[in-house]
Amino acid sequence: MIVILKQNPAQAQVDKLVSWLNDKGYDTNVSVGRQETIIGLIGDTSSVDVDLLRSLEVVEDVKRITEPYKNANRKFHTDDTVINVGGVKIGGGHFQVIAGPCSVESREQVTEIAKCVKAAGATLLRGGAFKPRTSPYSFQGLREEGIDILLEAKAETGLPIVTEIMDAAHLPLFGDVDLIQVGARNMQNFELLRSLGGAGKPILLKRGLANTIQELLMSAEYIMASGNPDIILCERGIRTFETATRNTLDLSAVPVLHRLSHLPVIVDPSHATGESWLVRPTSVASAAIGADGIMIEVHNDPPHALCDGAQALTCEAFADVMGDINAVRAAMFAEK
Amino acid sequence: MIVILKQNPAQAQVDKLVSWLNDKGYDTNVSVGRQETIIGLIGDTSSVDVDLLRSLEVVEDVKRITEPYKNANRKFHTDDTVINVGGVKIGGGHFQVIAGPCSVESREQVTEIAKCVKAAGATLLRGGAFKPRTSPYSFQGLREEGIDILLEAKAETGLPIVTEIMDAAHLPLFGDVDLIQVGARNMQNFELLRSLGGAGKPILLKRGLANTIQELLMSAEYIMASGNPDIILCERGIRTFETATRNTLDLSAVPVLHRLSHLPVIVDPSHATGESWLVRPTSVASAAIGADGIMIEVHNDPPHALCDGAQALTCEAFADVMGDINAVRAAMFAEK
Amino acid sequence: MIVILKQNPAQAQVDKLVSWLNDKGYDTNVSVGRQETIIGLIGDTSSVDVDLLRSLEVVEDVKRITEPYKNANRKFHTDDTVINVGGVKIGGGHFQVIAGPCSVESREQVTEIAKCVKAAGATLLRGGAFKPRTSPYSFQGLREEGIDILLEAKAETGLPIVTEIMDAAHLPLFGDVDLIQVGARNMQNFELLRSLGGAGKPILLKRGLANTIQELLMSAEYIMASGNPDIILCERGIRTFETATRNTLDLSAVPVLHRLSHLPVIVDPSHATGESWLVRPTSVASAAIGADGIMIEVHNDPPHALCDGAQALTCEAFADVMGDINAVRAAMFAEK
Amino acid sequence: MIVILKQNPAQAQVDKLVSWLNDKGYDTNVSVGRQETIIGLIGDTSSVDVDLLRSLEVVEDVKRITEPYKNANRKFHTDDTVINVGGVKIGGGHFQVIAGPCSVESREQVTEIAKCVKAAGATLLRGGAFKPRTSPYSFQGLREEGIDILLEAKAETGLPIVTEIMDAAHLPLFGDVDLIQVGARNMQNFELLRSLGGAGKPILLKRGLANTIQELLMSAEYIMASGNPDIILCERGIRTFETATRNTLDLSAVPVLHRLSHLPVIVDPSHATGESWLVRPTSVASAAIGADGIMIEVHNDPPHALCDGAQALTCEAFADVMGDINAVRAAMFAEK
Repeated sequence: MIVILKQNPAQAQVDKLVSWLNDKGYDTNVSVGRQETIIGLIGDTSSVDVDLLRSLEVVEDVKRITEPYKNANRKFHTDDTVINVGGVKIGGGHFQVIAGPCSVESREQVTEIAKCVKAAGATLLRGGAFKPRTSPYSFQGLREEGIDILLEAKAETGLPIVTEIMDAAHLPLFGDVDLIQVGARNMQNFELLRSLGGAGKPILLKRGLANTIQELLMSAEYIMASGNPDIILCERGIRTFETATRNTLDLSAVPVLHRLSHLPVIVDPSHATGESWLVRPTSVASAAIGADGIMIEVHNDPPHALCDGAQALTCEAFADVMGDINAVRAAMFAEK
Repeated sequence: MIVILKQNPAQAQVDKLVSWLNDKGYDTNVSVGRQETIIGLIGDTSSVDVDLLRSLEVVEDVKRITEPYKNANRKFHTDDTVINVGGVKIGGGHFQVIAGPCSVESREQVTEIAKCVKAAGATLLRGGAFKPRTSPYSFQGLREEGIDILLEAKAETGLPIVTEIMDAAHLPLFGDVDLIQVGARNMQNFELLRSLGGAGKPILLKRGLANTIQELLMSAEYIMASGNPDIILCERGIRTFETATRNTLDLSAVPVLHRLSHLPVIVDPSHATGESWLVRPTSVASAAIGADGIMIEVHNDPPHALCDGAQALTCEAFADVMGDINAVRAAMFAEK
Repeated sequence: MIVILKQNPAQAQVDKLVSWLNDKGYDTNVSVGRQETIIGLIGDTSSVDVDLLRSLEVVEDVKRITEPYKNANRKFHTDDTVINVGGVKIGGGHFQVIAGPCSVESREQVTEIAKCVKAAGATLLRGGAFKPRTSPYSFQGLREEGIDILLEAKAETGLPIVTEIMDAAHLPLFGDVDLIQVGARNMQNFELLRSLGGAGKPILLKRGLANTIQELLMSAEYIMASGNPDIILCERGIRTFETATRNTLDLSAVPVLHRLSHLPVIVDPSHATGESWLVRPTSVASAAIGADGIMIEVHNDPPHALCDGAQALTCEAFADVMGDINAVRAAMFAEK
Repeated sequence: MIVILKQNPAQAQVDKLVSWLNDKGYDTNVSVGRQETIIGLIGDTSSVDVDLLRSLEVVEDVKRITEPYKNANRKFHTDDTVINVGGVKIGGGHFQVIAGPCSVESREQVTEIAKCVKAAGATLLRGGAFKPRTSPYSFQGLREEGIDILLEAKAETGLPIVTEIMDAAHLPLFGDVDLIQVGARNMQNFELLRSLGGAGKPILLKRGLANTIQELLMSAEYIMASGNPDIILCERGIRTFETATRNTLDLSAVPVLHRLSHLPVIVDPSHATGESWLVRPTSVASAAIGADGIMIEVHNDPPHALCDGAQALTCEAFADVMGDINAVRAAMFAEK
């Protein structure tokens, strides 16, 4: 970390700052140039309060040289991480499609959808049991019963299952879930993140609506620093001024995350766009840009879905999208 | 709710849609104009999935006429709500200043700050015991011990206390807290919101970084629908493209919220701007625009604060700001 | 257009509004439902001031049914428009890559780059003669001389040329330019747009940093309504809170624009991302999502470029990107 | 400017970079610390391409120490600039209210409004002759005739006039205008800005919808560097995700601009909020936060206004707002 001082600082102020930094445990390296005086901080600066330092009278600006995350940082872990989700590998050239309904509604619904998405080539089954809904008057999910239904569909089809957790207290219910999802609205629910350090299974961490790529990596760091290294990152659209789509899908985030981190990155085009007709083109683009996986909402009867029917594909439409995804992958990447 | 159909719809499609809506429990009123066919939905439409309806082939667009929140809606509760926080009234002409440190650090620190802010005119004491921090390597708060320290300061000064909750499981620790704060990052932590319906005390609900005014009211609605009518709303800056300030303080939100809802609205200029020198002008503007209260970070030694020292005022600076706030209030409003 | 009235409006107010609307030249169709009264406006409503109507006391809300643009609207022109740029077709299945330097710097530079991009498969040459720069102290372009240099490169290579106009007064200098570009910062320079109605050649209209898809179409409408139907739209990234990339590339805008309009849509990944290493993945994704063309900055010596060297590819890197683009196009689309 | 190199750079790369920088005319100062190597650039760095420098292989990051604007910078001009607009002073404690209709519609309209706003205390008259409208089908203004009408109102009332320019070619028509406005959509129309360097009269420069505070100052710098030092800056709302107001009024920009620059700063609450009922509270807040002036739309018959009637006050409402503004100013500031 570099602390840039205001022009021509009083020597007494510089000395006071240096001794204050030393008291806090940082070694310092003062460099006096013709134009500016700079203090380099040596050692682990991940807990430094940059805003505070910047507010000191003698300080002009503060510049981090190293990122504030370590476990998630590719600099310290150059190989791609490959995560095993109930026997299915993702990352490092292993590409997977996760599909299923927004909400778990009934045994029949989930089993039917699970069979059709498996037949079309999906390798993991998603479905919401606990549902975060903006309105308290909307359907809130089947909760425990929803997880049971997913497990039955897993038993019948062999597809590992993915479902969302909304509160640390529910963790015991997720013992047989293969991949635990943290939703966009909980990306900075730090108590939940910390608790997942002890989950003993992989986590699918979705980017918050208004969170930067660095904040997404800091939230991954929370879980990793708490003991769980198996994180899959998910881009699902950010909030911008544009209202033609529900969110703005930030596809560039995929190569940026791959450069900064070794963790796998998937894309959720259904939530990003909010409209079923946009799922095909954005899924194909996600595959082309190098995502390690795609998560797509599929429903056997979208107009009767209890949530987000507007963005769900039918099984037939999903099979078409799978064909396009495979064509692009074949043209661009050697499949593992 | 109004459903606008595509031009010249087939009668069979219209009939099918009407019968589907009726099956879902809505009465309908079909109006065929020269230019368009419109279906009015009669009854409580707060649980209708607007996106789904809009995605149907025959539908051009869907328009809500009534807001999706009821308890928080001024239409059904025209008088300002006045909330009693440990004997101190807020809302409906009652204006209060909440002050104190970002984090509770020690007994001495909190007591010293509590005395000085009380002397300057603050009527509630804030302090963070559980701290949401972006980095897992930053100070996370004294937790239970922090609440004990706040309660001692309350005993000594008589100031009711405000502190943040981060997880529903911690609620039993908040039994003697006067006002429970829900932070910006948890505004849509719906499990937490629901649990606060049974808290038995007022809630200070902060607007999320990227949440609309309507979403803030929907989150208030969650708590109210769960049994707790005592909500104070708080504008604390939103995330935009501008980086000159930490967030962009959306002061217009104060009159907009007052128009839409009967709940009190306060402003947090310290978090909105992130810089202590901006707290004075934005506090004065908050008072002028009609906020029911202001929440300001004050520290006895900002450069040594364990969190957010950059945005904290000294006790002396806080007293100056109080003077300006009072001058503006006196010029603009008759004090209750 | 539909005007929704407040609940139980006074008949006198309704009558007054209807007669006011009739005076303005709209036929009206009043529909009184149990829940709401609605006035349908019949005829061309593109010049109605929606905000004003919404502000009237008796009005609850106003809802456009038809888009406010006509010439650019696919509803009235269902076939894709194919635009001929100096003999090269774009749109309706015709895909083209535009390449060249950010700024025209010298005869030798432009000719060398033109030859190499042509060899790699580019079919149009871009280069900035008039340069919009944020700072008055940055290089502002060679202006007239820059256009001459581009024309010489065209003479030598046969590539049609694309260059930006910044002021209506410069239009006479663009007589031999094949495609006139309107930059993002001038997307709502309405005097310039109007003047281009008489340009007699195609226009490349870039989306503004903070402009919606609808506003982009309205700006196209300006030029079309002024007499020039040959518009190519360009997505080049929007401004959001994310700072990891210079702008956020909104790739979903491509299928959304294709649905709303018949005009060709291209993508500029160089300006959208601001970094050369992101050009390859975002170009491939742009091809996969169905763009009608891609515009890429190429420089023979990026570190010595007079502007935006950070985002320019070398000729060799450009040839690699062309290979990937062609592979994706071959997998996804039958080439015309 | 500071160039931070990657860890352990090869000496040959450092030497090459230093000699390249020297060739470009910068003196350099290399400082080798234990943790990092830093190159300080000495001299005027306002034309350095920071993005390019950052893209070089050996460079980790680049940090400006000085702002890229000079003429507008308070560091080099510590006293507030006071600008004389047709005999009326603004800035440095001189506070003015500019009022008038959005568009000039007729002689009678403008004269009536001018008299009423003068009676209520406004000291400058605004009115749009050239109107930037999103739709080509909306009223575009009376243009030359509109300026004549404003000049007649000036002759009758003595109020100096403010009106917007949309194209450099129109400048000769503005010879008798007292203050030339550059609208938000033209804030980065650099050809227009440059031409205003020779206007010979003050410029009112409005912040663009999606422009940062620094970009606003860079646009002021364009005009100043071209020879015109008399710039008044105007905050008028920025574009964010919130749709409850037309734009989000960024009131913190007022104290931030005052800290960075010596130029006067005014606020336009009418355009920022888009709704007449929000003009009073936001005007009062603008006065309280220390703006040097406020610009308010007033119309004698808002429902019949040809543009933006939704945001215009009646003369009576304007007089009320003036009373509140004066009360706040009296409480907070000693009037000059």
